[in-house]
Amino acid sequence: MGFRAPVSEYLFLLDHVLGYDRVAAQPRFAEAGRDTAAAVLEEAGRLASEVLAPLQRPGDLTPARLQDGQVVTSPGFAGGYRAIAEGGWVGIAAGTEAGGMGLPVSLSMAVGEMMAGACLSLQLCPLLSQGQIEALEHHGSEALKALYLPRLVSGEWTGTMCLTEPQAGSDVGALTTRAEPAGDGSHRITGQKIYITWGDHDMAENICHLVLARLPDGGPGTKGISLFLVPKFLPDADGAPGAANAVTTVSLEHKLGLHGSPTAVLQFEAAQGWLVGAPHKGMAAMFTMMNNARLGVAMQGVGIAEAALQAAGAYAAERRQGETPEPGESAIQGHADLRRMLAEMQADTFAARAIALSCAVAIDMARATGDAAWAARAALLTPVAKSFGTETGMRVAETGVQVHGGMGVIEETGAAQFCRDVRVTAIYEGTNGIQAMDLAGRKLGDGGKAAFGLIDEIQDAAGSLRGRHPDLAGPVWDAAEGLREATERMLAAGLTDRFAVAAPYLRGFARVLGGWHHLQAGAAEEARLPLARFYIRRMLPEAGPLLAQAGLGAADLYAVRPPGRTV
Amino acid sequence: MGFRAPVSEYLFLLDHVLGYDRVAAQPRFAEAGRDTAAAVLEEAGRLASEVLAPLQRPGDLTPARLQDGQVVTSPGFAGGYRAIAEGGWVGIAAGTEAGGMGLPVSLSMAVGEMMAGACLSLQLCPLLSQGQIEALEHHGSEALKALYLPRLVSGEWTGTMCLTEPQAGSDVGALTTRAEPAGDGSHRITGQKIYITWGDHDMAENICHLVLARLPDGGPGTKGISLFLVPKFLPDADGAPGAANAVTTVSLEHKLGLHGSPTAVLQFEAAQGWLVGAPHKGMAAMFTMMNNARLGVAMQGVGIAEAALQAAGAYAAERRQGETPEPGESAIQGHADLRRMLAEMQADTFAARAIALSCAVAIDMARATGDAAWAARAALLTPVAKSFGTETGMRVAETGVQVHGGMGVIEETGAAQFCRDVRVTAIYEGTNGIQAMDLAGRKLGDGGKAAFGLIDEIQDAAGSLRGRHPDLAGPVWDAAEGLREATERMLAAGLTDRFAVAAPYLRGFARVLGGWHHLQAGAAEEARLPLARFYIRRMLPEAGPLLAQAGLGAADLYAVRPPGRTV
Repeated sequence: MGFRAPVSEYLFLLDHVLGYDRVAAQPRFAEAGRDTAAAVLEEAGRLASEVLAPLQRPGDLTPARLQDGQVVTSPGFAGGYRAIAEGGWVGIAAGTEAGGMGLPVSLSMAVGEMMAGACLSLQLCPLLSQGQIEALEHHGSEALKALYLPRLVSGEWTGTMCLTEPQAGSDVGALTTRAEPAGDGSHRITGQKIYITWGDHDMAENICHLVLARLPDGGPGTKGISLFLVPKFLPDADGAPGAANAVTTVSLEHKLGLHGSPTAVLQFEAAQGWLVGAPHKGMAAMFTMMNNARLGVAMQGVGIAEAALQAAGAYAAERRQGETPEPGESAIQGHADLRRMLAEMQADTFAARAIALSCAVAIDMARATGDAAWAARAALLTPVAKSFGTETGMRVAETGVQVHGGMGVIEETGAAQFCRDVRVTAIYEGTNGIQAMDLAGRKLGDGGKAAFGLIDEIQDAAGSLRGRHPDLAGPVWDAAEGLREATERMLAAGLTDRFAVAAPYLRGFARVLGGWHHLQAGAAEEARLPLARFYIRRMLPEAGPLLAQAGLGAADLYAVRPPGRTV
Repeated sequence: MGFRAPVSEYLFLLDHVLGYDRVAAQPRFAEAGRDTAAAVLEEAGRLASEVLAPLQRPGDLTPARLQDGQVVTSPGFAGGYRAIAEGGWVGIAAGTEAGGMGLPVSLSMAVGEMMAGACLSLQLCPLLSQGQIEALEHHGSEALKALYLPRLVSGEWTGTMCLTEPQAGSDVGALTTRAEPAGDGSHRITGQKIYITWGDHDMAENICHLVLARLPDGGPGTKGISLFLVPKFLPDADGAPGAANAVTTVSLEHKLGLHGSPTAVLQFEAAQGWLVGAPHKGMAAMFTMMNNARLGVAMQGVGIAEAALQAAGAYAAERRQGETPEPGESAIQGHADLRRMLAEMQADTFAARAIALSCAVAIDMARATGDAAWAARAALLTPVAKSFGTETGMRVAETGVQVHGGMGVIEETGAAQFCRDVRVTAIYEGTNGIQAMDLAGRKLGDGGKAAFGLIDEIQDAAGSLRGRHPDLAGPVWDAAEGLREATERMLAAGLTDRFAVAAPYLRGFARVLGGWHHLQAGAAEEARLPLARFYIRRMLPEAGPLLAQAGLGAADLYAVRPPGRTV
């Protein structure tokens, strides 16, 4: 049985957990009512299940390769990409004036999740274009927008993000790529960029690189960085791809996973580029799309979790091994520990998806209403969604291998590929450690207002359900109170002390959010009560010791001598 | 910087945590005093660091392959294996009468760990021989012992274990391989075996398969299974490898990791074999070596954790990225979250190693004294060591990738290989789920006597250290009390209810043991106090919610509908 996009799961979440009716009620999303949402998800789900999922294994077996300076993609990928582009899915959230669907982020994220679950290697290509579209919509000149947006939205051209250099990864400010004014309004970009996802390929007629570089008068650090659009082929007077630009694909990385996604080293040698946004404001332009990109990565983790869960569930329902204690069940899913693994996978996949999509709803509400509280909610949830979503992807994929037993490490089974493919999601778009620092630092920078607002909402919900579901609502209310106290301790601490406990704080935060969403689900649908009960009884209590660390500070951490220190 | 065997760490454990003096005081181990132990570890450490570690990457890049029915091993592996054999390391724990060193299991396990950390793919080959040597020592006829033992101990020949069949993995009793008496004292074995580690290769002149098969009068299930020795080449009158036996290597698996270790499908077509032990008692013979083999796998997890920790530590001490809050530190190890990751890796590697080696000491004491309490201690600790050791290997390797950031998923870095290589250790020699069931079922079958005896010992130790280290000894004592209560709840529950919470119970058990050993280490050496404090403050509390699950039972687990169930 192949991957099936979990359309009914999204619809349940929209209806009973996420409050999508609030999004649909906004004039901006007048075209995105519940019925449209269902139709969009059905249609994208069909594409994911029928067209993209069959590319998952070929992409792994026949990686993208560099041949005579050109990347040749995996078998079937060009066709899969074409199907995505022709379905209009690249532009699902893009403005209608450039040919986009203009749909809410909550729907585009769900669609992104299903495509990532089907074939993450391929999904990365349109995802990068979407980020570029967003950057241009916000910061591009009218001329740039007119030339590039329609072609990116249609999928004729694709986009990349060129941030990282060998010495400048998480520390973007250390980059050395230079930009010189050419005198004709364009610039000449020179430098080397690494880890460029889909940096070259043969699936579209042009590739547009968004490149961070320093102008001659750009100061050191992140404040001196500007953003440039550098196409692989320079558009001619009609906007068709013309002469080749001075961009060379130096090499492709040999990666643990995502073999179908070419990760390139690109060399720019006085390549022609155009400034996007104001000089020296490149980081601000990057940040515009950062939150969405991070949320997109969260969905990748959830998508892989979903795919790994489906594969493990199908195997556990078929494979027989020993007598099981469950009456009438002869497959291994009748064994208690197998059942525990499957329940943990289900419970965390649900929680991670609900957290990420609730963040998407907050983004939609912020955009539609301009309400700063919604924007703060989205900003608060983004690092939680990214970190917990990708960790869930890793953990569920790992457990999926375990469910398969010895077959799990045989590559033909496909279970191991999920582990390899999902691993980098915890690293790119800001490592999960950076997400935790973002939460504990910047996102609590409002004095905890956004966090406390969210905690209030959880406790209100738990309080109102205490009568109907005391065994579930009580622990959720208590866990939220634990999160409140931990947040207060975080706020009382200095930044380094916060950073020292940021990762457990973030994970505890996510555990509490998961409890809330499971409670909502169980209250809405009786069939979901058992999983909610499982999560709240067995998984939510993990939040206790995690959040208890919030006050511990950094001193004892720095007292431990790191293993590589020689003196 | 390459892998360095952690010799001083073993010596510290022997001296201050494991009570190795008790082993050395036994007449059986008169030749294995502290100085000999140090010399043995030094010598093996040199081999691991200098000869075996350089084979780690070539084994991954150039997997063993099947060519004209013969396995061709990875570059350098034959030389590495020869060095192991010539050093006498295959027979480190074997009896001296067959040429072995007769050293305690506590030393052979330490040596196994360092070789696994250096190159797990290769270490598996002598490890399998060691299991076979043990089985023959206990169950082989005098004739079989005389012919096979010296050649296995010297490493001229190697051994395999042939248990699994496509339909019979964890459920060994479902196997269908048949054995027919040949009338000359030997048998004819027919059937197919899968997942045969080092099932064929070109590094030794003969390969001896221990095969589980059913005699004509063997009943169904595990009780009708017998054990046979089936050599690849039939020994001639002088004991030299003669005519080829009817054993065919059908194929090799394409695995997630351990590419240097050939995993074979073997076809036996009326192959000549000799009974080992009594008819229909094959499972008993397998169980003899099972505990040791499981402990050997625990050490593999610890070895990979050590190697991943060293690699990550070195990277974190060199790589610069952003300004760090630690005075004088410009490398990324000055960042708080990096430091948290490194400390967690260190703390768990220490805990997993101490737990596993304390199990080895119990085995040694049981063998030397015949004391049933030591045997029960060893039996109790084995599943904890296996499961926690391999989980620690997975978790530390995963965190090691995270420490490397984007470099972590680039295969050239080596960090990802640890993840791929270690994954199967949580599955083979009994999945970790089966280990948990073994602990919660069979190993508590004494009414909890062994468990409570261990808990008493932990609380005695914590009680006596409460004056000097109240902040550490108090939480350890309390955690042990939590383990006692959880164990009581487990004992009050039926088997299925126990199995439903066996995995969290096992992990909580290991967390408490880790607290004890960290406390011992901190009390013995001031420089180890910070890591002990880190573990006890931040990691030990995880035991609380894990052990709290002990009474929850199976009903709510079975109420969750598994994802693959269609009705």
